Amino acid sequence: MAHLRYNLITGEWVIIAEERARRPEDFRQRRPPREVPEHSPSCPFCPGQEARTPDATLVLPADGPWLVRAVPNLYPALRPDGHAARSGTGSRQTVEGTGEHEVIIEAREHNASLAILPVEQVALVLLAYRERTRRLYEDPRIEHVIVFSNHGPGAGTSLEHPHSQIVGTPVVPGQVRIRMEKALHFFGDSGRCLFCHCLEEELEEGSRVVASSPGFVAFVPYAALSPFHLWVFPRRHNAYFGDLDDVEIADLAEVLKRTLLLLRSGLDDPDFNLVIRSSAPNERSVRYLHWYLSIVPRMSQAAGFELGTGMFINTSLPEECAAFLRGVPSGGSRGASGTGSP
Amino acid sequence: MAHLRYNLITGEWVIIAEERARRPEDFRQRRPPREVPEHSPSCPFCPGQEARTPDATLVLPADGPWLVRAVPNLYPALRPDGHAARSGTGSRQTVEGTGEHEVIIEAREHNASLAILPVEQVALVLLAYRERTRRLYEDPRIEHVIVFSNHGPGAGTSLEHPHSQIVGTPVVPGQVRIRMEKALHFFGDSGRCLFCHCLEEELEEGSRVVASSPGFVAFVPYAALSPFHLWVFPRRHNAYFGDLDDVEIADLAEVLKRTLLLLRSGLDDPDFNLVIRSSAPNERSVRYLHWYLSIVPRMSQAAGFELGTGMFINTSLPEECAAFLRGVPSGGSRGASGTGSP
Repeated sequence: MAHLRYNLITGEWVIIAEERARRPEDFRQRRPPREVPEHSPSCPFCPGQEARTPDATLVLPADGPWLVRAVPNLYPALRPDGHAARSGTGSRQTVEGTGEHEVIIEAREHNASLAILPVEQVALVLLAYRERTRRLYEDPRIEHVIVFSNHGPGAGTSLEHPHSQIVGTPVVPGQVRIRMEKALHFFGDSGRCLFCHCLEEELEEGSRVVASSPGFVAFVPYAALSPFHLWVFPRRHNAYFGDLDDVEIADLAEVLKRTLLLLRSGLDDPDFNLVIRSSAPNERSVRYLHWYLSIVPRMSQAAGFELGTGMFINTSLPEECAAFLRGVPSGGSRGASGTGSP
Repeated sequence: MAHLRYNLITGEWVIIAEERARRPEDFRQRRPPREVPEHSPSCPFCPGQEARTPDATLVLPADGPWLVRAVPNLYPALRPDGHAARSGTGSRQTVEGTGEHEVIIEAREHNASLAILPVEQVALVLLAYRERTRRLYEDPRIEHVIVFSNHGPGAGTSLEHPHSQIVGTPVVPGQVRIRMEKALHFFGDSGRCLFCHCLEEELEEGSRVVASSPGFVAFVPYAALSPFHLWVFPRRHNAYFGDLDDVEIADLAEVLKRTLLLLRSGLDDPDFNLVIRSSAPNERSVRYLHWYLSIVPRMSQAAGFELGTGMFINTSLPEECAAFLRGVPSGGSRGASGTGSP
């Protein structure tokens, strides 16, 4: 019979539908590798098309041909105009749409992805995340910064060229505040960081750990909301992603690439969303907040039940998903091999 | 420039992306009517196939050929086994998957839908919602009941035959608890029911109201999370859907059918999710809770931003969506006409 698991960090119950559960290998996409060229003349993110994007806000490395570029989004959800002014009362409260919305182009190759890029290139992408996060928070009108990436059409992207996005919003999202409250209460009750505590329990049990490094642990959460849902936690207690040092960036690049390659090789390059959940720099010394990275493969479709309850139905066992990923041969011979840079 | 609106009930900010906004008519699906037969011999919900579902838990009317049937789901997420027993501690808390999962077959016709069914038939469907909600709550192991419907493949349904689902869970979903807290705090601060207050403000302003009746008001929320997001609120303060009387059922059937027909006619039968958000009977006399119905057309895809923040980007103006729906000719001449029962 099914059972429910409580996600202490998100505050949501997940139904683990064991009877309906599929084996991990049943989630393989079983489709041929995406046919994507290494260069696309129509792509605004490919080398040679730089004039088609707004001026870069960051180019890495500083000299020579670019390897990573950050550019303002041509169709931004929010713009750095106005004063983030608030108006309205009662049920009609409004804030001016002041903010930032940038694209981080992850590589020159149109057909690359973090899973198959050289680890040094992944580190450059993470460096761009860090630098742009820091810079966006320098704007006092911005209250919250979110870094995310949509990989594949099922994850909501319309552009093939590998890219991430960074958005600065003039408000703290309600979901973020709720989770801060949960973490605050846990700290109040136990005197411990909720995230450090969960990581300790994951390491103790071990069955859901997928990859680890000196500084980071990638694991399928106990109450994973969907098959192959993954969290990457820093071992060091740190609320703010922008405080990563260069050694940590390099370490994270290695474990992130390795984890994404397991996903890609084991499941034939599934679509996924990647999100960095971090506090703001003014919360950096808070003892109950702890940044982390979340990867959600798009294996199922949310419908009325999820909408109406916030609960998800996971048709896999987190422990089996983790064991499956650990068993993927390194080098990716189990599934589609990448066609981009090795 | 864009602006953000705060949804006082959900606690989430929504970005109203005016610059990227499309006109309401641009959300028309512009596809031919779905070609669905009135009867499908392979459909387990069609008349003559009753033996293919588990025994009905409710048949309406009591005599003569059935018009609405409730049956246990053949592949339930939760089953009425076990004791909803809790176990585990810390980050590994578990509950047995005790619960109920039923399907409510809304009509005999394979190609019907609430928008085009006779209003008396819609009332029978709502009556089935009410009766099964009441019955599920009689099981002391069930803490929460959710009624929902997924219309169209984009909304997550795999079966064409018009049906809704009802699920009883052995926990109160985290999202539901969060919203209860919000409503409690609003009541504590203002001495008023948050929902009564919002409805009053919507009626006062009027620009987002789409349809109304003696007992109900259908409107696009001020901070609609997506284009043509709709709420139907009862005017009478009432926390528990199961407490609707027969007059209210008939009234709701009329305004719900009318609203769904505007959506169907104006936008060419878009996919949508419908959810009833209600408290439990033991909360029926609570002054700060108020049940309502939510309709979310599937007009955009949630991606990393929504996942990482809980915020949505709405590329329409709620006031324009409401005005568009109000202007749809009754009878549905603007879009695809129904092929099911008139």
